[in-house]
Amino acid sequence: MAELRREPITRMWVVVTTDHPKSPSDYLPFKPPYKVFDAKEPCPFCPGNEAMTPKELYAIPKGKEGWAVRVVPNKFPFFHIEGDFDRRPEGMYDVMEAIGAHEIIIESPDHHQSLAGMDPDQIGKILLSYRERILDLKKDLRFMQFLVLKNYPGIFNQHPHSHLVAMPVIPRRIDEEIWGVMDYYQRKERCIFCDMVKQELSDKKRIVLETIHFLVFSPFASRYPFEIWIVPKLHSPDFYLINEEEIGDLSFAIQSLFVRFYKLLSNPPYSLAFHTSPVQARFHRPEYHWHIEVRLRIGLREGFEWGTGFFVNPTPPEEAARYLREVEKGE
Amino acid sequence: MAELRREPITRMWVVVTTDHPKSPSDYLPFKPPYKVFDAKEPCPFCPGNEAMTPKELYAIPKGKEGWAVRVVPNKFPFFHIEGDFDRRPEGMYDVMEAIGAHEIIIESPDHHQSLAGMDPDQIGKILLSYRERILDLKKDLRFMQFLVLKNYPGIFNQHPHSHLVAMPVIPRRIDEEIWGVMDYYQRKERCIFCDMVKQELSDKKRIVLETIHFLVFSPFASRYPFEIWIVPKLHSPDFYLINEEEIGDLSFAIQSLFVRFYKLLSNPPYSLAFHTSPVQARFHRPEYHWHIEVRLRIGLREGFEWGTGFFVNPTPPEEAARYLREVEKGE
Repeated sequence: MAELRREPITRMWVVVTTDHPKSPSDYLPFKPPYKVFDAKEPCPFCPGNEAMTPKELYAIPKGKEGWAVRVVPNKFPFFHIEGDFDRRPEGMYDVMEAIGAHEIIIESPDHHQSLAGMDPDQIGKILLSYRERILDLKKDLRFMQFLVLKNYPGIFNQHPHSHLVAMPVIPRRIDEEIWGVMDYYQRKERCIFCDMVKQELSDKKRIVLETIHFLVFSPFASRYPFEIWIVPKLHSPDFYLINEEEIGDLSFAIQSLFVRFYKLLSNPPYSLAFHTSPVQARFHRPEYHWHIEVRLRIGLREGFEWGTGFFVNPTPPEEAARYLREVEKGE
Repeated sequence: MAELRREPITRMWVVVTTDHPKSPSDYLPFKPPYKVFDAKEPCPFCPGNEAMTPKELYAIPKGKEGWAVRVVPNKFPFFHIEGDFDRRPEGMYDVMEAIGAHEIIIESPDHHQSLAGMDPDQIGKILLSYRERILDLKKDLRFMQFLVLKNYPGIFNQHPHSHLVAMPVIPRRIDEEIWGVMDYYQRKERCIFCDMVKQELSDKKRIVLETIHFLVFSPFASRYPFEIWIVPKLHSPDFYLINEEEIGDLSFAIQSLFVRFYKLLSNPPYSLAFHTSPVQARFHRPEYHWHIEVRLRIGLREGFEWGTGFFVNPTPPEEAARYLREVEKGE
């Protein structure tokens, strides 16, 4: 079980697991950020080992008995699906149960596959799975926010997979974005993301690639070297409203971006997050503009960033975009 | 040179270095977060190599010709001291020069020393150096915010050192704290940190140690396992107003805390940040309450935190505090 606790100063909610708390020895020895997967143990995400995962929630079939994509509950979820919120004070503090859902999207039967190696059709099936699972979970009125996240390589298992999390609160980063979007809208009666797409299309120098429906660019104030945003050119607050044609287009954009990363930076580690409006009428924001943010896990200076909330990025986005645009030409 | 660029949605300022930008090959091979210092190269922070650093700004002498603590400008600063802000628009974006100061406090002549091994008297000299440098830099009216930061082990040099940064903007994390402090003050006409000290003294279970002037505890909504805050019990917005008696008391608290970390978690890597009110009449916040935040760099799940602004902490602060309280008893 886990609790959500609110830091009373910045109002940030934190998940604190209260049973089986980790002891100091659980952190020893200090693990490298990406440990090599132990190939001797059977992988629960590989075909043939389906019984090792909790009950399947969704799958896209392949051939007679196989699957192309498979969705299962996370065995070690941050949020649990049963129970009530039980919001309560604890002295001056606020606390509530970490009600939510945490699902794993197994992106391919192939243990050694990656976004750079998949064909766009397979990426399309992954995107479709995200959409279908959100549409299903959205019926549960306790959930306010959906997040799709992916770490490459996976931290606990290197079989390609991503996380879908349904939360009962709006996470800080989305909340900050909404605040900025609303403030801009009140001043200009325009969407800041739509304006940004126009600005980038006019400046050109931070664009990596453009498809019919999406713009892939390195944002002006990139927090990380080679930070990339993938933004739909047409305004839409909700990722789950994406249609088949847009899925095909986005799959191509994602594949092209990760092939470029692969070539340019020798298969770098990365994290990827889908930002979409909160759901349920009371929290939904039509002014919001869904998008994908990509961060490479290279050149980290976490101490400074943590201490200050102040990011230092030694590669300007114009340079990053130029490298990524030009890499296809070489080799 | 570097620019400050503002992310227009969350209004976060980012430093972007514009000359000598790093190319992809600069990030290869991917370095572990803590590389082993190359002992073959002479250390610029060791006694005898003083000529390798830029001109000394401050020192506390030791013996006839030696020094106990030494402060020098950072050779590779995030902020540069010369020039004007040059705030300007760039399309829809905002940009300004990264004017500021970035100094290195060399904490000991001994290359292999650490906070866990130093005696409190030496820690006191380090704290005194922070105070004296801030008092000097504060005369420059361009600077709005001071930050003291330390990474252990150091990322580029493992000789014990910390960073003092003077900034022309208020970093996000401090800004968020100020927002929370002011909001609480408006509702209650009390300082939220003062209330938190009272709450923790009454609950006791999250306290690691208490001295005459400081409370060392694991905050209720700890973002990281074994996160610790050191908070002065008496309200004060400004670290630089600390007096000699408080310095002595704080030195003891710091030493005791890091000896406990050393014993409990086998000399763990950590980051440490001093949070203090912005300076200059226009930005100073008498309602703010200065403090120190300590984060161990263990058990990181950066992908999720980055994607969501949502921290997951598998060790409740009550457990962390109990381990840290009890470790002195053992061995």
